[in-house]
Amino acid sequence: MVRAEIITIGDEILYGQILDTNTQWISQELDKLGIKTVRKSSVGDAREAIVGIFDETQGRADLVIITGGLGPTKDDLTKKILADYFGSELVLHPQALEDVTEFFKIRGRELTEINRSQAFLPANCTFIRNAQGTAPAMWFDEKGIIWISMPGVPFEMKAIMEKEILPKLAGHFNTPTIVHRVIKTVGIGESYLSVLIEDWENNLPEHIKLAYLPSLGLVKLRLTGFGNDEIQLKKDIAICETSLKKIAGEYIFGYENDELESVVGELLRNKNETISVAESCTGGFLGHKFTSIAGSSDYFVGGVLAYSNEIKCNLLGVESEILKNFGAVSEECIRQMADGVRKMTGSTYGLATSGIAGPGGGTEDKPVGTVWIALSGPNDTITQKLTLGGSRKHNIELSTIACLNLLRKKIQ
Amino acid sequence: MVRAEIITIGDEILYGQILDTNTQWISQELDKLGIKTVRKSSVGDAREAIVGIFDETQGRADLVIITGGLGPTKDDLTKKILADYFGSELVLHPQALEDVTEFFKIRGRELTEINRSQAFLPANCTFIRNAQGTAPAMWFDEKGIIWISMPGVPFEMKAIMEKEILPKLAGHFNTPTIVHRVIKTVGIGESYLSVLIEDWENNLPEHIKLAYLPSLGLVKLRLTGFGNDEIQLKKDIAICETSLKKIAGEYIFGYENDELESVVGELLRNKNETISVAESCTGGFLGHKFTSIAGSSDYFVGGVLAYSNEIKCNLLGVESEILKNFGAVSEECIRQMADGVRKMTGSTYGLATSGIAGPGGGTEDKPVGTVWIALSGPNDTITQKLTLGGSRKHNIELSTIACLNLLRKKIQ
Repeated sequence: MVRAEIITIGDEILYGQILDTNTQWISQELDKLGIKTVRKSSVGDAREAIVGIFDETQGRADLVIITGGLGPTKDDLTKKILADYFGSELVLHPQALEDVTEFFKIRGRELTEINRSQAFLPANCTFIRNAQGTAPAMWFDEKGIIWISMPGVPFEMKAIMEKEILPKLAGHFNTPTIVHRVIKTVGIGESYLSVLIEDWENNLPEHIKLAYLPSLGLVKLRLTGFGNDEIQLKKDIAICETSLKKIAGEYIFGYENDELESVVGELLRNKNETISVAESCTGGFLGHKFTSIAGSSDYFVGGVLAYSNEIKCNLLGVESEILKNFGAVSEECIRQMADGVRKMTGSTYGLATSGIAGPGGGTEDKPVGTVWIALSGPNDTITQKLTLGGSRKHNIELSTIACLNLLRKKIQ
Repeated sequence: MVRAEIITIGDEILYGQILDTNTQWISQELDKLGIKTVRKSSVGDAREAIVGIFDETQGRADLVIITGGLGPTKDDLTKKILADYFGSELVLHPQALEDVTEFFKIRGRELTEINRSQAFLPANCTFIRNAQGTAPAMWFDEKGIIWISMPGVPFEMKAIMEKEILPKLAGHFNTPTIVHRVIKTVGIGESYLSVLIEDWENNLPEHIKLAYLPSLGLVKLRLTGFGNDEIQLKKDIAICETSLKKIAGEYIFGYENDELESVVGELLRNKNETISVAESCTGGFLGHKFTSIAGSSDYFVGGVLAYSNEIKCNLLGVESEILKNFGAVSEECIRQMADGVRKMTGSTYGLATSGIAGPGGGTEDKPVGTVWIALSGPNDTITQKLTLGGSRKHNIELSTIACLNLLRKKIQ
């Protein structure tokens, strides 16, 4: 097992001015390669601390991944310290100079002396191209350890890892062939899902492992196959996936990087159907989810934020008698809201929400977290009552996910 | 200067299954006390690794803050290792037992043997109450270091820190009196703000420091005063604040934990005024921002998600000639949208957005990031053109902030 340490260099992270999201991402990617992270550390822009942690890694790690401290300012010490630490020196790297010159040229800016300094690299490193920025990454094979130094800007670091580092690591360490498959579910909690698929999980082949990755309202399942033959592993995982679908297929909405709102949008687009929304308790979050997807104007026509009862009546045609007798948070009201917005906009479907997001406004009959949702379609109108009871934010987000899932199940 | 190390224990964080947000928060809170974080580390649920990192901290830190590994399951090793490491042993702590018993009693659940084990603590620790959960925190004074062990669940950890640990640390280390004041600005970028207030910053008294804390569309300024006399420090900071307001007052929307949407909401509530929205490119995110605030139904009446041109015309009364001649992303259209939603809902103000969020849909005349916003009020309608050009997400968020700021400036 290859052991990795991840080191973040920079005062901003050490003092908490910014949140470090790099190390989580790196450890996930290493895990997918079968490389085990054994330590994560963060130190400031101080030579003694940086050298100290370099010393500590020896005997503990086979791979050290370092981010940060590669900017052109005098705070950024990593490159110089690495050169000194390995008894090397900074020399001008022709390809790095060409890249940084080109970077500024295509942006119509002049190359200053300080930018030019970014092309000086330790003589003993392998140059790793950074296509997104001006600081190259470096690869060292020293003291029995592979050392990788990358800029800390997340999108630069991720691009370098995906394009250059991860393939090179897989080759260097001759890591086993690993195949992943992420299967995404909605509408069932982690504990219920684990009971439902218990037998299936227990019967997985030895070389295929399962991980549960829950987030608010969703549970991702990740199957990981270890072996030597990629084609065979993919076949093995496909067999597991097929048997999973027989048990839990109704909850599976997508794979890998699919988002619920993009999957639902794609279903609508393929069928040439459209959707409108009538939002009370979600207050715009459902519309936001639809429209966060590029190209959503193909199927999302718009809708109404019906926060006040006047808007529910005047725009959506909810009868005032209904509000008087049952209240806005009722099956009767939500049905008229969904039907109303569909009729008003002429969309194929209309989705509606009305509930008590909290923290105030709850009653004994209708406590905080009581939410009604409805989907009006060409043939019928489906309603559903949710009993959530979390924070305001959670109630809004979970109601939105429930709406998207109601629509998904209808049109799939 | 007191030096602190923060250690996170747990495989979930080490392998990247969850994102560690605790250490950032802890280092921010220590910074406010004048305690300097010198190292952050994360190790797994393994005795050797945990003992190894405990050893390393000696001579490097005066304070070690540990989170995680305090659950009742056999993975959770921290408590036992701490007892062994200090040559102590786990003993039943009467107050801890009372607390955990009470915790289950008020939730109508039975105290199991495994829960009861949470009341066993190292004999040499000071018991620190956890009012939110079942695992108490612990304070040790050993080997010349203060060691604090807390559960890793963020809301439990934060409550323990705020209520118990931070005051105790201030007393123990006799930290200097420190007074903070956070001043929040909107509508001006960090670099422009720093030029605008450069003279003011250069003339700050020696004992008052300034930090810039930028986030998308907003810049927070934090003034920190160091001294012995809290009342005097507050006076000194108030003087700085007053002179800042004279220079940059128009950009200041709030203080400490104020959010732009809550400040604007409070202004509306105090004036008994109401707001409605007509959203095209923001697609619901503006309504979502208003309604993310508890009690927003006092002033937010709702509005229209006018994604399609039909809705812009039929509901908001935008003239089809306007769309034909100028397009939906135009000053002419946005004016009619804002006026239309205000008239339709009868609200005091109407806010509208129309733009090209991207990544598609841009033209030479109207590239991605071209956004028009408008505010219709009882006396006039103001329009504003934004030129953003970031990602779809950024364009949506920055347009929303610009709308909230337009309204703030009007009603303040």
